[in-house]
Amino acid sequence: MAYDQNNIFAKILRGEIPCKEVYSDEYVLAFHDIAPQAPVHILVIPRGQYISIDEFGREGSAEEIKGFYTAIDKIVAQEGLKENGFRCIANTGDHGGQEVPHFHMHILGGCKIGRMVETDAV
Amino acid sequence: MAYDQNNIFAKILRGEIPCKEVYSDEYVLAFHDIAPQAPVHILVIPRGQYISIDEFGREGSAEEIKGFYTAIDKIVAQEGLKENGFRCIANTGDHGGQEVPHFHMHILGGCKIGRMVETDAV
Repeated sequence: MAYDQNNIFAKILRGEIPCKEVYSDEYVLAFHDIAPQAPVHILVIPRGQYISIDEFGREGSAEEIKGFYTAIDKIVAQEGLKENGFRCIANTGDHGGQEVPHFHMHILGGCKIGRMVETDAV
Repeated sequence: MAYDQNNIFAKILRGEIPCKEVYSDEYVLAFHDIAPQAPVHILVIPRGQYISIDEFGREGSAEEIKGFYTAIDKIVAQEGLKENGFRCIANTGDHGGQEVPHFHMHILGGCKIGRMVETDAV
Protein backbone atom coordinates (compact mmCIF):
# COMPACT_ATOMS: atom_id res chain seq x y z
CA MET A 1 0.00 0.00 0.00
CA ALA A 2 1.39 3.40 -0.99
CA TYR A 3 1.46 6.21 1.53
CA ASP A 4 -1.49 8.59 1.12
CA GLN A 5 -0.16 12.15 1.03
CA ASN A 6 -3.63 13.47 1.85
CA ASN A 7 -4.26 11.61 5.09
CA ILE A 8 -5.14 13.93 7.97
CA PHE A 9 -1.83 13.46 9.82
CA ALA A 10 0.14 14.32 6.66
CA LYS A 11 -1.90 17.53 6.51
CA ILE A 12 -1.20 18.26 10.17
CA LEU A 13 2.54 17.70 9.58
CA ARG A 14 2.41 20.14 6.65
CA GLY A 15 0.58 22.69 8.80
CA GLU A 16 -2.52 22.58 6.61
CA ILE A 17 -4.71 21.48 9.52
CA PRO A 18 -4.18 22.74 13.08
CA CYS A 19 -3.56 20.51 16.08
CA LYS A 20 -3.29 20.97 19.83
CA GLU A 21 0.45 20.43 20.00
CA VAL A 22 1.99 18.66 22.99
CA TYR A 23 5.57 18.14 21.79
CA SER A 24 7.62 18.57 18.65
CA ASP A 25 11.16 17.75 17.58
CA GLU A 26 12.97 16.69 14.41
CA TYR A 27 11.60 13.15 14.62
CA VAL A 28 8.03 13.45 15.89
CA LEU A 29 4.99 15.63 16.36
CA ALA A 30 2.67 14.91 19.30
CA PHE A 31 -0.79 16.39 19.82
CA HIS A 32 -4.01 15.81 21.74
CA ASP A 33 -6.50 13.40 20.16
CA ILE A 34 -9.58 15.34 19.04
CA ALA A 35 -11.82 12.62 20.51
CA PRO A 36 -10.04 11.70 23.75
CA GLN A 37 -10.82 8.29 25.22
CA ALA A 38 -9.09 8.97 28.55
CA PRO A 39 -8.25 12.07 30.64
CA VAL A 40 -4.94 12.17 28.74
CA HIS A 41 -5.00 10.98 25.13
CA ILE A 42 -2.02 12.00 23.03
CA LEU A 43 -1.05 10.89 19.53
CA VAL A 44 2.62 10.70 18.60
CA ILE A 45 3.50 10.53 14.90
CA PRO A 46 6.83 10.25 13.11
CA ARG A 47 7.68 13.03 10.67
CA GLY A 48 8.60 10.40 8.09
CA GLN A 49 5.96 8.82 5.86
CA TYR A 50 5.24 5.45 7.44
CA ILE A 51 1.84 3.80 7.43
CA SER A 52 2.18 1.47 10.39
CA ILE A 53 4.32 0.39 13.37
CA ASP A 54 5.68 -2.59 11.43
CA GLU A 55 6.55 -0.56 8.34
CA PHE A 56 8.27 2.02 10.55
CA GLY A 57 10.28 -0.74 12.24
CA ARG A 58 11.30 -2.21 8.88
CA GLU A 59 11.87 0.95 6.82
CA GLY A 60 12.76 3.57 9.41
CA SER A 61 16.42 4.26 10.19
CA ALA A 62 17.80 3.33 13.60
CA GLU A 63 18.15 7.07 14.28
CA GLU A 64 14.52 7.80 13.39
CA ILE A 65 13.22 4.90 15.47
CA LYS A 66 15.39 5.78 18.46
CA GLY A 67 14.17 9.37 18.05
CA PHE A 68 10.53 8.30 18.03
CA TYR A 69 10.69 6.18 21.18
CA THR A 70 12.94 8.68 22.97
CA ALA A 71 10.26 11.29 22.27
CA ILE A 72 7.65 9.06 23.91
CA ASP A 73 9.83 9.01 27.02
CA LYS A 74 10.07 12.80 26.97
CA ILE A 75 6.33 13.24 26.40
CA VAL A 76 5.21 10.99 29.26
CA ALA A 77 7.63 12.83 31.54
CA GLN A 78 6.44 16.24 30.36
CA GLU A 79 2.78 15.28 30.79
CA GLY A 80 3.27 13.86 34.28
CA LEU A 81 2.39 10.28 33.33
CA LYS A 82 5.47 8.56 34.78
CA GLU A 83 4.27 8.29 38.36
CA ASN A 84 0.98 6.49 37.75
CA GLY A 85 1.64 4.99 34.35
CA PHE A 86 0.00 4.94 30.94
CA ARG A 87 -0.85 2.72 27.99
CA CYS A 88 0.62 2.92 24.48
CA ILE A 89 -1.47 1.54 21.61
CA ALA A 90 -0.62 1.27 17.93
CA ASN A 91 -3.43 0.07 15.68
CA THR A 92 -2.66 -1.47 12.30
CA GLY A 93 -5.21 -2.29 9.63
CA ASP A 94 -8.78 -3.47 9.96
CA HIS A 95 -8.42 -5.83 12.93
CA GLY A 96 -6.41 -3.22 14.82
CA GLY A 97 -8.97 -0.50 14.12
CA GLN A 98 -6.50 1.86 12.43
CA GLU A 99 -8.29 5.01 11.33
CA VAL A 100 -5.52 7.11 9.75
CA PRO A 101 -2.88 5.55 7.44
CA HIS A 102 0.08 7.33 9.03
CA PHE A 103 1.69 5.46 11.93
CA HIS A 104 0.59 6.93 15.24
CA MET A 105 1.10 5.80 18.81
CA HIS A 106 -1.74 6.53 21.20
CA ILE A 107 -0.67 7.43 24.73
CA LEU A 108 -3.55 7.03 27.19
CA GLY A 109 -3.34 8.02 30.84
CA GLY A 110 -4.82 9.97 33.70
CA CYS A 111 -6.89 7.03 34.96
CA LYS A 112 -6.72 3.25 35.02
CA ILE A 113 -7.18 2.36 31.35
CA GLY A 114 -8.86 -0.98 32.03
CA ARG A 115 -8.76 -4.23 30.11
CA MET A 116 -6.79 -4.46 26.88
CA VAL A 117 -9.58 -6.14 24.94
CA GLU A 118 -13.36 -5.88 25.07
CA THR A 119 -14.93 -9.09 26.31
CA ASP A 120 -16.90 -9.67 23.13
CA ALA A 121 -13.79 -9.38 20.98
CA VAL A 122 -12.22 -12.55 22.36
CA MET B 1 12.88 1.71 40.10
CA ALA B 2 15.60 -0.93 39.72
CA TYR B 3 15.10 -3.83 37.34
CA ASP B 4 13.89 -6.98 39.14
CA GLN B 5 16.09 -9.89 38.07
CA ASN B 6 13.44 -12.33 39.27
CA ASN B 7 10.50 -11.14 37.19
CA ILE B 8 8.94 -13.91 35.13
CA PHE B 9 10.20 -12.60 31.78
CA ALA B 10 13.78 -12.44 33.10
CA LYS B 11 13.36 -16.09 34.07
CA ILE B 12 12.02 -16.95 30.61
CA LEU B 13 14.98 -15.16 28.99
CA ARG B 14 17.36 -17.18 31.20
CA GLY B 15 15.58 -20.41 30.24
CA GLU B 16 14.46 -21.05 33.82
CA ILE B 17 10.79 -21.04 32.83
CA PRO B 18 9.54 -22.41 29.49
CA CYS B 19 7.56 -20.46 26.95
CA LYS B 20 5.76 -21.20 23.71
CA GLU B 21 8.29 -19.49 21.48
CA VAL B 22 7.15 -17.65 18.36
CA TYR B 23 10.36 -15.89 17.30
CA SER B 24 13.84 -15.30 18.64
CA ASP B 25 16.87 -13.28 17.54
CA GLU B 26 19.70 -11.36 19.17
CA TYR B 27 17.41 -8.48 20.17
CA VAL B 28 14.10 -10.06 21.18
CA LEU B 29 12.24 -13.13 22.31
CA ALA B 30 8.57 -13.54 21.34
CA PHE B 31 6.15 -16.08 22.75
CA HIS B 32 2.45 -16.78 23.12
CA ASP B 33 0.71 -15.15 26.09
CA ILE B 34 -0.33 -17.85 28.56
CA ALA B 35 -3.74 -16.17 28.96
CA PRO B 36 -4.56 -15.07 25.40
CA GLN B 37 -7.09 -12.28 25.03
CA ALA B 38 -7.50 -12.71 21.27
CA PRO B 39 -7.06 -15.58 18.76
CA VAL B 40 -3.46 -14.40 18.37
CA HIS B 41 -1.80 -12.92 21.46
CA ILE B 42 1.98 -12.70 21.34
CA LEU B 43 4.36 -10.96 23.73
CA VAL B 44 7.59 -9.50 22.38
CA ILE B 45 10.32 -8.66 24.90
CA PRO B 46 13.77 -7.14 24.46
CA ARG B 47 16.72 -9.22 25.66
CA GLY B 48 18.03 -6.17 27.49
CA GLN B 49 16.84 -5.30 30.98
CA TYR B 50 14.29 -2.53 30.47
CA ILE B 51 11.21 -2.08 32.61
CA SER B 52 9.01 -0.09 30.26
CA ILE B 53 8.56 1.30 26.73
CA ASP B 54 9.72 4.74 27.84
CA GLU B 55 12.81 3.44 29.62
CA PHE B 56 13.68 1.33 26.56
CA GLY B 57 13.32 4.40 24.32
CA ARG B 58 15.54 6.46 26.62
CA GLU B 59 18.18 3.91 27.63
CA GLY B 60 18.20 1.44 24.72
CA SER B 61 20.73 1.91 21.92
CA ALA B 62 19.50 2.85 18.46
CA GLU B 63 20.57 -0.62 17.30
CA GLU B 64 18.59 -2.39 20.04
CA ILE B 65 15.48 -0.30 19.42
CA LYS B 66 15.67 -0.75 15.65
CA GLY B 67 16.16 -4.47 16.30
CA PHE B 68 13.10 -4.65 18.54
CA TYR B 69 10.71 -2.93 16.13
CA THR B 70 12.16 -4.75 13.11
CA ALA B 71 11.41 -7.99 14.94
CA ILE B 72 7.78 -6.91 15.36
CA ASP B 73 7.60 -6.47 11.59
CA LYS B 74 9.02 -9.99 11.08
CA ILE B 75 6.69 -11.53 13.66
CA VAL B 76 3.48 -10.07 12.23
CA ALA B 77 4.58 -11.26 8.77
CA GLN B 78 5.46 -14.73 10.08
CA GLU B 79 2.17 -15.05 11.93
CA GLY B 80 0.06 -13.92 8.97
CA LEU B 81 -1.20 -10.74 10.62
CA LYS B 82 -0.30 -8.27 7.86
CA GLU B 83 -3.34 -8.79 5.66
CA ASN B 84 -6.04 -8.11 8.26
CA GLY B 85 -4.08 -6.12 10.78
CA PHE B 86 -3.35 -6.24 14.50
CA ARG B 87 -3.01 -4.11 17.63
CA CYS B 88 0.19 -3.46 19.60
CA ILE B 89 -0.18 -2.53 23.27
CA ALA B 90 2.50 -1.61 25.79
CA ASN B 91 1.30 -1.15 29.36
CA THR B 92 3.32 0.90 31.82
CA GLY B 93 2.69 1.16 35.54
CA ASP B 94 -0.57 1.07 37.45
CA HIS B 95 -2.76 3.09 35.10
CA GLY B 96 -1.50 1.08 32.13
CA GLY B 97 -2.14 -2.21 33.90
CA GLN B 98 1.45 -3.47 33.58
CA GLU B 99 1.76 -6.91 35.18
CA VAL B 100 5.43 -7.81 34.63
CA PRO B 101 8.22 -5.25 35.15
CA HIS B 102 10.10 -6.13 31.96
CA PHE B 103 9.05 -4.17 28.89
CA HIS B 104 6.77 -6.25 26.68
CA MET B 105 4.74 -5.41 23.61
CA HIS B 106 1.47 -7.27 23.24
CA ILE B 107 0.53 -8.14 19.66
CA LEU B 108 -3.18 -8.94 19.37
CA GLY B 109 -4.80 -10.21 16.19
CA GLY B 110 -6.94 -12.82 14.51
CA CYS B 111 -10.17 -10.85 14.99
CA LYS B 112 -11.29 -7.26 15.26
CA ILE B 113 -9.82 -6.17 18.58
CA GLY B 114 -12.55 -3.64 19.35
CA ARG B 115 -12.40 -0.35 21.21
CA MET B 116 -9.14 0.86 22.71
CA VAL B 117 -10.65 1.76 26.06
CA GLU B 118 -13.48 0.30 28.10
CA THR B 119 -16.40 2.68 28.36
CA ASP B 120 -16.25 2.91 32.12
CA ALA B 121 -12.57 3.87 32.05
CA VAL B 122 -13.21 7.22 30.37
